[in-house]
Amino acid sequence: MWSELGEHLRVSIFGQSHAPAIGVVMDGLPAGERVDLEALEEFLQRRAPGRTDTSTPRREEDRPRILSGLVDGHTCGAPLAAVIENTNTRSGDYENLKDVPRPGHADYTAQVRYGGAQDVRGGGHFSGRLTAPLCIAGGICLQILARRGVEVDAHIQRIGGVEDRPFRPLGEDAGALAQLRRAPFPTLEQGAGERMREAILDARAEGDSVGGVIECVVQHPPAGLGGGMFGGIDSRLAAALFGIPAVKGVELGAGFRVAEMRGSENNDPFRMEGDRVVTSSNHAGGVLGGITTGMPLLFRVAFKPTPSISREQDSVSLSRHREEKLVVHGRHDPCIVPRAVPVVEAVAAIALLDAMLDPPARLP
Amino acid sequence: MWSELGEHLRVSIFGQSHAPAIGVVMDGLPAGERVDLEALEEFLQRRAPGRTDTSTPRREEDRPRILSGLVDGHTCGAPLAAVIENTNTRSGDYENLKDVPRPGHADYTAQVRYGGAQDVRGGGHFSGRLTAPLCIAGGICLQILARRGVEVDAHIQRIGGVEDRPFRPLGEDAGALAQLRRAPFPTLEQGAGERMREAILDARAEGDSVGGVIECVVQHPPAGLGGGMFGGIDSRLAAALFGIPAVKGVELGAGFRVAEMRGSENNDPFRMEGDRVVTSSNHAGGVLGGITTGMPLLFRVAFKPTPSISREQDSVSLSRHREEKLVVHGRHDPCIVPRAVPVVEAVAAIALLDAMLDPPARLP
Amino acid sequence: MWSELGEHLRVSIFGQSHAPAIGVVMDGLPAGERVDLEALEEFLQRRAPGRTDTSTPRREEDRPRILSGLVDGHTCGAPLAAVIENTNTRSGDYENLKDVPRPGHADYTAQVRYGGAQDVRGGGHFSGRLTAPLCIAGGICLQILARRGVEVDAHIQRIGGVEDRPFRPLGEDAGALAQLRRAPFPTLEQGAGERMREAILDARAEGDSVGGVIECVVQHPPAGLGGGMFGGIDSRLAAALFGIPAVKGVELGAGFRVAEMRGSENNDPFRMEGDRVVTSSNHAGGVLGGITTGMPLLFRVAFKPTPSISREQDSVSLSRHREEKLVVHGRHDPCIVPRAVPVVEAVAAIALLDAMLDPPARLP
Amino acid sequence: MWSELGEHLRVSIFGQSHAPAIGVVMDGLPAGERVDLEALEEFLQRRAPGRTDTSTPRREEDRPRILSGLVDGHTCGAPLAAVIENTNTRSGDYENLKDVPRPGHADYTAQVRYGGAQDVRGGGHFSGRLTAPLCIAGGICLQILARRGVEVDAHIQRIGGVEDRPFRPLGEDAGALAQLRRAPFPTLEQGAGERMREAILDARAEGDSVGGVIECVVQHPPAGLGGGMFGGIDSRLAAALFGIPAVKGVELGAGFRVAEMRGSENNDPFRMEGDRVVTSSNHAGGVLGGITTGMPLLFRVAFKPTPSISREQDSVSLSRHREEKLVVHGRHDPCIVPRAVPVVEAVAAIALLDAMLDPPARLP
Repeated sequence: MWSELGEHLRVSIFGQSHAPAIGVVMDGLPAGERVDLEALEEFLQRRAPGRTDTSTPRREEDRPRILSGLVDGHTCGAPLAAVIENTNTRSGDYENLKDVPRPGHADYTAQVRYGGAQDVRGGGHFSGRLTAPLCIAGGICLQILARRGVEVDAHIQRIGGVEDRPFRPLGEDAGALAQLRRAPFPTLEQGAGERMREAILDARAEGDSVGGVIECVVQHPPAGLGGGMFGGIDSRLAAALFGIPAVKGVELGAGFRVAEMRGSENNDPFRMEGDRVVTSSNHAGGVLGGITTGMPLLFRVAFKPTPSISREQDSVSLSRHREEKLVVHGRHDPCIVPRAVPVVEAVAAIALLDAMLDPPARLP
Repeated sequence: MWSELGEHLRVSIFGQSHAPAIGVVMDGLPAGERVDLEALEEFLQRRAPGRTDTSTPRREEDRPRILSGLVDGHTCGAPLAAVIENTNTRSGDYENLKDVPRPGHADYTAQVRYGGAQDVRGGGHFSGRLTAPLCIAGGICLQILARRGVEVDAHIQRIGGVEDRPFRPLGEDAGALAQLRRAPFPTLEQGAGERMREAILDARAEGDSVGGVIECVVQHPPAGLGGGMFGGIDSRLAAALFGIPAVKGVELGAGFRVAEMRGSENNDPFRMEGDRVVTSSNHAGGVLGGITTGMPLLFRVAFKPTPSISREQDSVSLSRHREEKLVVHGRHDPCIVPRAVPVVEAVAAIALLDAMLDPPARLP
Repeated sequence: MWSELGEHLRVSIFGQSHAPAIGVVMDGLPAGERVDLEALEEFLQRRAPGRTDTSTPRREEDRPRILSGLVDGHTCGAPLAAVIENTNTRSGDYENLKDVPRPGHADYTAQVRYGGAQDVRGGGHFSGRLTAPLCIAGGICLQILARRGVEVDAHIQRIGGVEDRPFRPLGEDAGALAQLRRAPFPTLEQGAGERMREAILDARAEGDSVGGVIECVVQHPPAGLGGGMFGGIDSRLAAALFGIPAVKGVELGAGFRVAEMRGSENNDPFRMEGDRVVTSSNHAGGVLGGITTGMPLLFRVAFKPTPSISREQDSVSLSRHREEKLVVHGRHDPCIVPRAVPVVEAVAAIALLDAMLDPPARLP
Repeated sequence: MWSELGEHLRVSIFGQSHAPAIGVVMDGLPAGERVDLEALEEFLQRRAPGRTDTSTPRREEDRPRILSGLVDGHTCGAPLAAVIENTNTRSGDYENLKDVPRPGHADYTAQVRYGGAQDVRGGGHFSGRLTAPLCIAGGICLQILARRGVEVDAHIQRIGGVEDRPFRPLGEDAGALAQLRRAPFPTLEQGAGERMREAILDARAEGDSVGGVIECVVQHPPAGLGGGMFGGIDSRLAAALFGIPAVKGVELGAGFRVAEMRGSENNDPFRMEGDRVVTSSNHAGGVLGGITTGMPLLFRVAFKPTPSISREQDSVSLSRHREEKLVVHGRHDPCIVPRAVPVVEAVAAIALLDAMLDPPARLP
């Protein structure tokens, strides 16, 4: 099991849903960077449960404690470690899962891999709760990037059948982004958010859940990041995003739509904007040959519906080798997409800062 | 620049389109495995240009020479190196590209990153030709997997507006797969292939190109491969696939369709098949929590239209800081998707064998 | 800065001498292994200060708190995180060190590298205190190894001019090893330990310090561990050992003595011991071609004298660019060698377990 | 098996003694660096056999062919691959070694690890011949370093009982270094070299071999390279050096002598040299806390006597499980130390350039 991300900035996630704590170590973080803990907690609040009526009523006190790596509020070059204590845990809910795995969860595959040693309580290390320390790491990276003019923002592009309008690919949404970060339901069109909320409540009322798509844009990324056949920013970003629980698809720029496009349509023409080389469209999503063009980095991530639903489901008893009905108890989000928005931003920020730490392609 | 893939089986790709040679080193390959060179060359032929009227007439003699790693036709535990000499190169075609970058290509981003030192001839290290050594590596992995009952097959699922029927997600296509490997246009429905071929020829006639989607299935993968937040088989597979030139999207199982699904529909119910735990559907694409379920591994990859088109395009002169018209000369595939089919299989095989080399989760 | 060790078992150390806490994350630890916390604390006690009159009187409560990775006292496959709170810190002692670096310490090089952002208090991340979490990780590995019959033991081979007899290279010391683990001054000859203790007290009386050599033996290692030009167990062990603060040399088997030996003398003849292939001597220290022979793994590690001495020393003011006299205050061990003995064992155990997790050279 | 070195500059060695070729891939090499092929061949000649009467009369045409990575004699950012064809091979000499392993060689351990699949001819991948591609990589790094004022030089410090005077630790040997690179027997004192030569010839006359120590100095290394508990330049250098066949010990600066020193003697006092901070002595060997001080990097490496000797030796038959006498045929150096001098320089250059490619500790 490797729960570590990054080539140069190594982000190591630890913890289980019902362990004493969850946390993160960031090794390779640049020194001398201020960490605004208040802003970090605000960022973490965007991921916290219990903010809206569509999320689980379970409250988490996601207040991180920084154990190391800071001196006077600035990174000191030593690994930064942060933990969140696990307080609100109700282990009793999960007793049966080791034998009768929940469809759509990692219960069965963890059993195959770890042979019964795995922690099943609350999903163990596979729990969505582990995205909290990921957000600590990402939140710190976002601050470092923002200081250099690089902004990462995401919105809910789709939930159930409801769509929000997509980002404008050349970055013309700049004005609308600030409000996204404050909204419990971050959409570009307010009406879309309301209809999504209804779709979620409908699903919950029926003991069911819904999935969705998150779209993310990175404004003003440096040009020239990434490179090599497998060291491209697209490869690294995709690997990182598929590490978020429930992700089933990642596409960059025009993504799967390229299958229906002609080259003459998909190629982004170059043009000059003053002294700067830019493109007139951005079907590439800001990446050519694995290297950033300097145009906005644009990608979408598909999240499956929460597998924990209250309806009865078909499963098996692993010990008795027979089929059984399963009813999953406990409190679960009927849709994790709204809370996953800052997680996508966090992961993108980590991948981007990591690429900014690549050795220079030329020595001075 | 890192052109290396894999955690335990490290596949290192080298070469440029017009360098003396291209090749690959595979470090960490299991010892004692027979390598059938004839079968390997047949596999490489599936990627070679000039096989059909839809691909570039340029002929490549993609005959690999194994330099090391074999004794009496079996791997010996030492790194296996293989090279393909570059013979058919016409450097003159590419003179202007360093100053006037081709839209949709890595010309511009390579210039930003390598500051003029990069090899522009034929796309240099970014050339699709570099997928030939990737196929050498993947072809060897496919043989090792097949010996253990694991089969990797892909077909063209879409080109332009034309669709082939998708794989049956539970692996019921087994009978149809053998013919896919022999077909220059690997589709499940013969008619689809013919219409795709027409779509490509139409595009070429108009000096244009088309993109597409390749779908890949891995039959009989071991259950329990992959794991950890970022060591999942999905993360590793996605990173590898985005390393193939022109890839813009990767989705697993139901992929982006999960956004429209309810949990009750998307969750794959468990059931018993004799003593074996299987699922009744396979929206997960064979992966839960980053770990293989043992059901077929199923994913799709989107390829953009070949950026080299013969139509005039808008670009800029990097030296003169002004806009210029560009006409790309040379011989190019109007659609790379048919030749990319074995490349997708190769990359999947490398990622899978690498995961099979993960340390055991439990010690004996 | 990378404070991470291991290829498959990734041990990530964090903390600074005066940060809120120090700790470790172990990712890739085999699942299902019992961790005896009491035995672990006993092992940590061997490293703790204040045990003898030759070490600093400063007391550390090195009681680790396990945050994750355990279920019912067994590893669960998820990363194991452990922390030790820093309680006994007196920051005032170290005020001046950022400007006037201590000779023999990392004060100056950290200043060059981190440009003033580094944590100077108590040596920051460079402090010997960081070997405590290393011992947590190593102590857990030692338990896993011991369960499989692999025992790691070390003794003080030299301090100042005083020598202990070396280990018998074929492992005939087995009987004497148990007492080494209980001794505050682990030597094979009791008299040697007493004379070393005197040498240390003499040095301290003169405001000075002494260095030494630790010898370590691994009994019953599996044969066939390690391999490849740079994946040898010797390379990995050496890299790990040089990570311990104050280490200036590592030698294996006959080590530097090989320079005076003839091949006929140094070559270890093979012979049969029942069905087992063994060697009649062990100048190789249990390693040939980077791979374990199955004979005891035997190596020695040189530790420099504690750089913090109470005598006045020559240094410079980095801000004023002039030479200055420096007197180092605070409490320091006049010799760190006795407390480094378990650290060497810990590091060897981590490197060995990591090599045991290498993928098999042949697939089943 | 991993035959790869480096974090950012990844040097991957392939080949076996009797495979069609041996070679190297360098991924991550800075772009835009001129490679002087003539100077590279001269450097490789220093490692070639048959130069003096103390080395094997076997001739190797170690002329490397660069397959990729260069454009107009400059690195282009793509991986640089180079091969040396194996021409002068006499496989017949090595028939028996798979069953009756040579003492002191990897024959036995390779058999344990690779279960009979390994290439035994001429030592296979464990052959000293594999240091030739290592010298290609190192030779290129040396050129890149020299262009920045960093010079790497080594001499034979000891062979048998004969000692050369050590390097002056503060780098005052600058004038004497140029001649070292031209000498077939690189020593600082001419008389020492002659006596070493005699010691080797004596050993050979008796069917035996001798070992030795190589000392290496890096002049004018940048200060501030390396860092972190396990990312120190000492750890990385030691790991690389132990990858050279026959190395049994590595020590830095005062090395094992620190065991007899007091802190007041071993600590290197700081002083000003103009505006530059230097040390008055260099017992640290240019490294404090794993980070370069900017003083000369100074280390010694112990090489065991060539295990292939013509005397009869005790071994076993692995198939018949019984003891057997073995006489090793073939042509072997009675001492590999003279030819290992450029190999040590090469490895140091790779490790140093790799550290120079570490991400900056602070972001601009």
